[in-house]
Amino acid sequence: MPLSIGFVVYPGLSQLALTGPLQVFAGLPDTTCHIAAKTLAPVASDSVLSIPPTRAFADCPDLDLICVPGGLGASEALRDSETMTFIRERGRSAKWVTSVCTGAFLIGAAGFLKNRRAATHWAYRDLLPLVGATAGGARVMHDGNVWTCAGVTAGIDFALAIAAEIASPGAAQSIQLAMEYDPAPPFDAGSAKFAPEPVKQRLDVAYNRMRHAMRDALASA
Amino acid sequence: MPLSIGFVVYPGLSQLALTGPLQVFAGLPDTTCHIAAKTLAPVASDSVLSIPPTRAFADCPDLDLICVPGGLGASEALRDSETMTFIRERGRSAKWVTSVCTGAFLIGAAGFLKNRRAATHWAYRDLLPLVGATAGGARVMHDGNVWTCAGVTAGIDFALAIAAEIASPGAAQSIQLAMEYDPAPPFDAGSAKFAPEPVKQRLDVAYNRMRHAMRDALASA
Repeated sequence: MPLSIGFVVYPGLSQLALTGPLQVFAGLPDTTCHIAAKTLAPVASDSVLSIPPTRAFADCPDLDLICVPGGLGASEALRDSETMTFIRERGRSAKWVTSVCTGAFLIGAAGFLKNRRAATHWAYRDLLPLVGATAGGARVMHDGNVWTCAGVTAGIDFALAIAAEIASPGAAQSIQLAMEYDPAPPFDAGSAKFAPEPVKQRLDVAYNRMRHAMRDALASA
Repeated sequence: MPLSIGFVVYPGLSQLALTGPLQVFAGLPDTTCHIAAKTLAPVASDSVLSIPPTRAFADCPDLDLICVPGGLGASEALRDSETMTFIRERGRSAKWVTSVCTGAFLIGAAGFLKNRRAATHWAYRDLLPLVGATAGGARVMHDGNVWTCAGVTAGIDFALAIAAEIASPGAAQSIQLAMEYDPAPPFDAGSAKFAPEPVKQRLDVAYNRMRHAMRDALASA
């Protein structure tokens, strides 16, 4: 039986939090990837790209690994019982439960982060205790069978680390070379620790509203 | 008028070569992104993700920037007159002509790389002279109004560099921080210069067939 990997998508997900890890996992030998949603209708992301699911939740095969990407829509997805039920039920039977970015709050609200060290997007780290988790310091966190990571692009690093564990380091390295993933960001602005203060302050203002939305959604989840 | 950015998609593109830069450009102020293809039917990529275009070529507005992602399907796309005509015509009127990965051969066959220094996926670098270009040494190359870059994931670095030029360094840094792009690959295997030799050899064998397909397609383009 090939390994079965399923991504959960919902309106307002950050498309790169899905497409980064998907590109990595698609390179694994003997693996089938699924993109699962409530229905087969294309799902709006945070850009003009809409995501056509390959499976409706009801028709999704058993998953060895479930991956929940994040995005601004995560707080709304928390209020969606079909999505949360899928994550809870399929997560329970999966060997690995994983999330990218604010997808951590979806697997967290589903019960998978209790007493775990976890990662999420930098702007949401202080909310991790609301789902019983401790914010770890690393970009990619691994606690038992639960893998989480920092925001959006961290999904690529995370998926390569997972690929090394579930297949082999050689398989992960082949995928990394095929993707020519030898990153060279033009600025040192990708971490809240090092980003220029004005850049960080501008985003902090924008994220404040979204943090509130997430907090409210978690309170009623 | 908002800045108009258009991605050209075709069957067999590498989805991350599109979705990486798209995530960056989607964060630019006062910018509209389009995903253009022959028809509005979803386009198969190199993974289970199919890409729903937002515009058919015939209905695509004028583009300030055209971006052609790469992928194994690039050699077939070279033989497609509608796709090549769109790239040629829209490239001529665009302010910036750009490509990711093997998309370089599509803008090259359309005439935009003559006597230019350019980048492409490592496995195809030696074919750049077939479109009149010289292989540059950098991951992201900028020669006049033409930007090209290395394989797949280089599209993220490339798009941030372009964002800094067409908007501002501050805008690019905000996008980088929002995407938490502070990469930490688990292995040093993303460059053909440093990847372990067995990993490189395995891929070289696989890429040989694809290099032949590209060479044949360029010969008849």
